[in-house]
Amino acid sequence: MAVFQLHERLAAESCVVGDWTLSRLLLADDARFPWLILVPRRARISEIQELDPSDRSILMEEITRVSIGLRKITGATKINVGALGNVVAQLHVHIVARHPGDAAWPGPVWGHGAPLRYGSSVRDNFIENLRRGL
Amino acid sequence: MAVFQLHERLAAESCVVGDWTLSRLLLADDARFPWLILVPRRARISEIQELDPSDRSILMEEITRVSIGLRKITGATKINVGALGNVVAQLHVHIVARHPGDAAWPGPVWGHGAPLRYGSSVRDNFIENLRRGL
Repeated sequence: MAVFQLHERLAAESCVVGDWTLSRLLLADDARFPWLILVPRRARISEIQELDPSDRSILMEEITRVSIGLRKITGATKINVGALGNVVAQLHVHIVARHPGDAAWPGPVWGHGAPLRYGSSVRDNFIENLRRGL
Repeated sequence: MAVFQLHERLAAESCVVGDWTLSRLLLADDARFPWLILVPRRARISEIQELDPSDRSILMEEITRVSIGLRKITGATKINVGALGNVVAQLHVHIVARHPGDAAWPGPVWGHGAPLRYGSSVRDNFIENLRRGL
Protein backbone atom coordinates (compact mmCIF):
# COMPACT_ATOMS: atom_id res chain seq x y z
CA MET A 1 0.00 0.00 0.00
CA ALA A 2 1.30 3.41 -0.97
CA VAL A 3 2.20 5.68 1.91
CA PHE A 4 1.57 9.42 2.05
CA GLN A 5 4.67 11.51 1.77
CA LEU A 6 4.64 15.30 1.55
CA HIS A 7 5.99 16.48 -1.81
CA GLU A 8 9.52 17.82 -1.36
CA ARG A 9 8.72 21.19 -2.92
CA LEU A 10 5.76 21.76 -0.59
CA ALA A 11 7.97 20.73 2.32
CA ALA A 12 10.72 23.14 1.25
CA GLU A 13 8.41 26.15 0.91
CA SER A 14 6.34 25.78 4.07
CA CYS A 15 6.28 24.89 7.77
CA VAL A 16 4.04 22.28 9.38
CA VAL A 17 1.30 23.69 11.61
CA GLY A 18 -0.17 20.30 12.45
CA ASP A 19 -1.95 17.17 11.31
CA TRP A 20 -5.76 17.28 11.26
CA THR A 21 -8.16 14.40 10.65
CA LEU A 22 -7.47 14.23 6.93
CA SER A 23 -4.88 16.83 6.08
CA ARG A 24 -1.48 18.11 7.01
CA LEU A 25 -1.77 21.85 7.57
CA LEU A 26 1.14 23.93 6.31
CA LEU A 27 2.02 27.62 6.55
CA ALA A 28 3.48 28.85 3.26
CA ASP A 29 6.77 30.62 3.95
CA ASP A 30 5.73 33.88 2.31
CA ALA A 31 5.23 36.85 4.62
CA ARG A 32 3.39 38.84 1.91
CA PHE A 33 0.21 36.83 2.51
CA PRO A 34 -1.19 34.83 5.45
CA TRP A 35 -1.29 31.61 3.43
CA LEU A 36 -2.16 28.13 4.63
CA ILE A 37 -2.15 24.86 2.71
CA LEU A 38 -4.12 21.68 3.44
CA VAL A 39 -2.58 18.49 2.06
CA PRO A 40 -4.79 15.40 2.43
CA ARG A 41 -2.60 12.62 3.84
CA ARG A 42 -3.47 10.19 1.09
CA ALA A 43 -0.94 8.70 -1.31
CA ARG A 44 -1.01 9.37 -5.05
CA ILE A 45 -3.90 11.82 -5.16
CA SER A 46 -3.71 14.84 -7.42
CA GLU A 47 -7.37 15.80 -7.90
CA ILE A 48 -10.24 16.38 -5.47
CA GLN A 49 -12.33 13.82 -7.33
CA GLU A 50 -9.76 11.10 -6.58
CA LEU A 51 -10.55 11.32 -2.87
CA ASP A 52 -13.40 9.13 -1.71
CA PRO A 53 -16.63 10.93 -0.77
CA SER A 54 -16.06 10.82 2.98
CA ASP A 55 -12.57 12.29 2.58
CA ARG A 56 -14.00 15.02 0.34
CA SER A 57 -16.51 15.88 3.00
CA ILE A 58 -13.79 16.09 5.66
CA LEU A 59 -11.66 18.21 3.33
CA MET A 60 -14.53 20.67 2.87
CA GLU A 61 -14.91 20.99 6.65
CA GLU A 62 -11.14 21.44 7.09
CA ILE A 63 -11.21 24.19 4.43
CA THR A 64 -14.07 25.81 6.36
CA ARG A 65 -12.25 25.59 9.68
CA VAL A 66 -9.10 27.17 8.23
CA SER A 67 -11.14 29.88 6.48
CA ILE A 68 -13.02 30.89 9.62
CA GLY A 69 -9.93 30.90 11.81
CA LEU A 70 -7.69 32.66 9.34
CA ARG A 71 -10.24 35.41 8.80
CA LYS A 72 -10.63 35.88 12.54
CA ILE A 73 -6.88 35.95 13.19
CA THR A 74 -5.98 38.25 10.29
CA GLY A 75 -9.10 40.39 9.85
CA ALA A 76 -8.97 39.55 6.13
CA THR A 77 -11.47 41.09 3.73
CA LYS A 78 -11.66 37.92 1.64
CA ILE A 79 -10.52 34.35 1.81
CA ASN A 80 -9.19 32.81 -1.40
CA VAL A 81 -9.33 29.05 -1.79
CA GLY A 82 -7.59 27.24 -4.60
CA ALA A 83 -6.54 23.76 -5.68
CA LEU A 84 -4.32 24.17 -8.74
CA GLY A 85 -1.49 21.67 -8.84
CA ASN A 86 -0.02 22.68 -12.19
CA VAL A 87 3.46 22.77 -10.67
CA VAL A 88 3.18 20.30 -7.77
CA ALA A 89 0.63 17.66 -8.71
CA GLN A 90 0.11 16.28 -5.18
CA LEU A 91 -3.36 17.47 -4.11
CA HIS A 92 -3.08 20.54 -1.92
CA VAL A 93 -5.57 23.29 -1.18
CA HIS A 94 -4.45 26.87 -0.65
CA ILE A 95 -6.38 29.08 1.76
CA VAL A 96 -5.14 32.65 1.65
CA ALA A 97 -6.21 35.71 3.65
CA ARG A 98 -6.56 38.68 1.30
CA HIS A 99 -7.12 42.39 1.74
CA PRO A 100 -7.25 45.36 -0.63
CA GLY A 101 -3.73 46.70 -1.05
CA ASP A 102 -1.94 43.43 -0.47
CA ALA A 103 0.91 42.62 -2.86
CA ALA A 104 -1.29 40.90 -5.46
CA TRP A 105 -4.75 42.42 -4.87
CA PRO A 106 -7.16 41.85 -6.60
CA GLY A 107 -5.28 39.23 -8.61
CA PRO A 108 -4.43 35.73 -7.44
CA VAL A 109 -1.39 35.09 -5.26
CA TRP A 110 -0.24 32.07 -7.26
CA GLY A 111 2.68 32.88 -9.53
CA HIS A 112 2.76 36.48 -8.30
CA GLY A 113 6.37 37.63 -7.83
CA ALA A 114 8.84 36.04 -5.45
CA PRO A 115 8.06 34.87 -1.93
CA LEU A 116 9.28 37.00 0.96
CA ARG A 117 10.51 34.62 3.64
CA TYR A 118 9.39 35.07 7.23
CA GLY A 119 11.95 35.81 9.88
CA SER A 120 12.02 32.78 12.16
CA SER A 121 10.60 34.46 15.26
CA VAL A 122 7.73 36.11 13.37
CA ARG A 123 6.99 32.80 11.68
CA ASP A 124 7.08 30.81 14.91
CA ASN A 125 4.78 33.29 16.65
CA PHE A 126 2.33 33.13 13.77
CA ILE A 127 2.34 29.32 13.85
CA GLU A 128 1.61 29.43 17.58
CA ASN A 129 -1.30 31.81 16.91
CA LEU A 130 -2.60 29.48 14.23
CA ARG A 131 -2.38 26.42 16.50
CA ARG A 132 -4.38 28.23 19.16
CA GLY A 133 -6.82 30.06 16.89
CA LEU A 134 -7.81 27.61 14.16
CA MET B 1 -36.13 36.66 2.83
CA ALA B 2 -33.35 37.56 0.44
CA VAL B 3 -33.56 35.97 -2.98
CA PHE B 4 -30.63 34.66 -4.99
CA GLN B 5 -29.74 36.77 -7.98
CA LEU B 6 -26.73 36.10 -10.19
CA HIS B 7 -24.21 38.97 -9.97
CA GLU B 8 -24.44 41.08 -13.13
CA ARG B 9 -20.75 40.75 -13.92
CA LEU B 10 -20.87 36.96 -13.73
CA ALA B 11 -23.99 37.06 -15.91
CA ALA B 12 -22.28 39.30 -18.47
CA GLU B 13 -19.17 37.14 -18.80
CA SER B 14 -20.74 33.69 -18.98
CA CYS B 15 -23.60 31.55 -20.32
CA VAL B 16 -25.89 29.39 -18.22
CA VAL B 17 -25.37 25.64 -18.62
CA GLY B 18 -28.05 24.69 -16.09
CA ASP B 19 -29.25 24.69 -12.51
CA TRP B 20 -28.09 21.81 -10.32
CA THR B 21 -29.24 20.94 -6.80
CA LEU B 22 -27.38 23.80 -5.17
CA SER B 23 -25.63 25.77 -7.87
CA ARG B 24 -26.16 27.51 -11.15
CA LEU B 25 -23.56 26.17 -13.59
CA LEU B 26 -22.02 28.74 -15.94
CA LEU B 27 -19.61 28.51 -18.86
CA ALA B 28 -17.15 31.40 -18.77
CA ASP B 29 -17.10 33.11 -22.16
CA ASP B 30 -13.38 32.65 -22.72
CA ALA B 31 -12.36 30.25 -25.44
CA ARG B 32 -8.75 30.12 -24.20
CA PHE B 33 -9.74 27.75 -21.40
CA PRO B 34 -12.61 25.28 -20.85
CA TRP B 35 -13.82 27.09 -17.76
CA LEU B 36 -16.94 26.42 -15.71
CA ILE B 37 -18.28 28.28 -12.69
CA LEU B 38 -20.57 26.99 -9.95
CA VAL B 39 -22.62 29.66 -8.17
CA PRO B 40 -24.58 28.39 -5.13
CA ARG B 41 -28.11 29.75 -5.45
CA ARG B 42 -28.09 31.30 -2.00
CA ALA B 43 -28.50 35.00 -1.32
CA ARG B 44 -25.76 37.12 0.24
CA ILE B 45 -23.06 34.49 0.48
CA SER B 46 -19.48 35.40 -0.32
CA GLU B 47 -17.46 32.74 1.50
CA ILE B 48 -17.65 28.94 1.56
CA GLN B 49 -17.93 29.03 5.36
CA GLU B 50 -21.14 31.06 5.13
CA LEU B 51 -22.94 28.11 3.53
CA ASP B 52 -24.49 25.69 5.96
CA PRO B 53 -22.78 22.28 6.28
CA SER B 54 -25.25 20.42 4.06
CA ASP B 55 -24.87 23.02 1.29
CA ARG B 56 -21.09 22.76 1.61
CA SER B 57 -21.30 19.03 1.19
CA ILE B 58 -23.45 19.41 -1.94
CA LEU B 59 -21.06 22.03 -3.29
CA MET B 60 -18.15 19.63 -2.87
CA GLU B 61 -20.02 16.95 -4.82
CA GLU B 62 -20.97 19.43 -7.54
CA ILE B 63 -17.31 20.47 -7.83
CA THR B 64 -16.44 16.78 -8.14
CA ARG B 65 -19.07 16.16 -10.81
CA VAL B 66 -17.87 19.11 -12.89
CA SER B 67 -14.23 18.09 -12.45
CA ILE B 68 -14.79 14.51 -13.58
CA GLY B 69 -16.93 15.50 -16.56
CA LEU B 70 -14.75 18.37 -17.68
CA ARG B 71 -11.66 16.22 -17.59
CA LYS B 72 -13.39 13.51 -19.60
CA ILE B 73 -14.76 15.93 -22.20
CA THR B 74 -11.55 17.94 -22.65
CA GLY B 75 -8.80 15.41 -21.91
CA ALA B 76 -7.29 17.98 -19.53
CA THR B 77 -4.01 17.26 -17.77
CA LYS B 78 -5.12 19.05 -14.61
CA ILE B 79 -8.26 20.53 -13.16
CA ASN B 80 -7.89 23.86 -11.33
CA VAL B 81 -10.47 24.75 -8.70
CA GLY B 82 -10.67 28.18 -7.16
CA ALA B 83 -12.97 30.36 -5.07
CA LEU B 84 -11.46 33.85 -5.04
CA GLY B 85 -14.09 36.58 -5.11
CA ASN B 86 -11.73 39.56 -4.86
CA VAL B 87 -13.52 41.25 -7.77
CA VAL B 88 -17.02 39.73 -7.58
CA ALA B 89 -17.78 38.91 -3.96
CA GLN B 90 -20.77 36.62 -4.63
CA LEU B 91 -19.55 33.10 -3.87
CA HIS B 92 -18.58 31.31 -7.08
CA VAL B 93 -16.24 28.41 -7.68
CA HIS B 94 -14.16 28.19 -10.84
CA ILE B 95 -13.37 24.79 -12.32
CA VAL B 96 -10.93 25.07 -15.21
CA ALA B 97 -9.49 22.40 -17.50
CA ARG B 98 -5.76 22.98 -17.92
CA HIS B 99 -3.05 21.52 -20.11
CA PRO B 100 0.64 22.27 -20.63
CA GLY B 101 0.94 24.92 -23.31
CA ASP B 102 -2.40 26.62 -22.65
CA ALA B 103 -2.36 30.42 -22.58
CA ALA B 104 -1.53 30.70 -18.86
CA TRP B 105 0.23 27.40 -18.06
CA PRO B 106 1.47 26.74 -15.39
CA GLY B 107 0.15 29.96 -13.85
CA PRO B 108 -3.43 30.60 -12.79
CA VAL B 109 -6.04 31.69 -15.34
CA TRP B 110 -7.46 34.41 -13.11
CA GLY B 111 -6.31 37.86 -14.14
CA HIS B 112 -4.33 36.44 -17.07
CA GLY B 113 -4.73 38.63 -20.15
CA ALA B 114 -8.02 39.36 -21.87
CA PRO B 115 -10.78 36.84 -22.51
CA LEU B 116 -11.19 35.53 -26.04
CA ARG B 117 -14.92 35.31 -26.69
CA TYR B 118 -16.39 32.15 -28.18
CA GLY B 119 -18.12 32.29 -31.53
CA SER B 120 -21.77 31.55 -30.86
CA SER B 121 -21.93 28.20 -32.68
CA VAL B 122 -18.77 26.88 -31.02
CA ARG B 123 -20.09 28.03 -27.66
CA ASP B 124 -23.53 26.50 -28.16
CA ASN B 125 -22.03 23.17 -29.25
CA PHE B 126 -19.78 23.14 -26.20
CA ILE B 127 -22.71 23.88 -23.90
CA GLU B 128 -24.63 20.98 -25.47
CA ASN B 129 -21.63 18.71 -24.88
CA LEU B 130 -21.48 19.86 -21.27
CA ARG B 131 -25.17 19.24 -20.68
CA ARG B 132 -24.81 15.71 -22.02
CA GLY B 133 -21.40 14.91 -20.53
CA LEU B 134 -21.39 16.33 -17.01
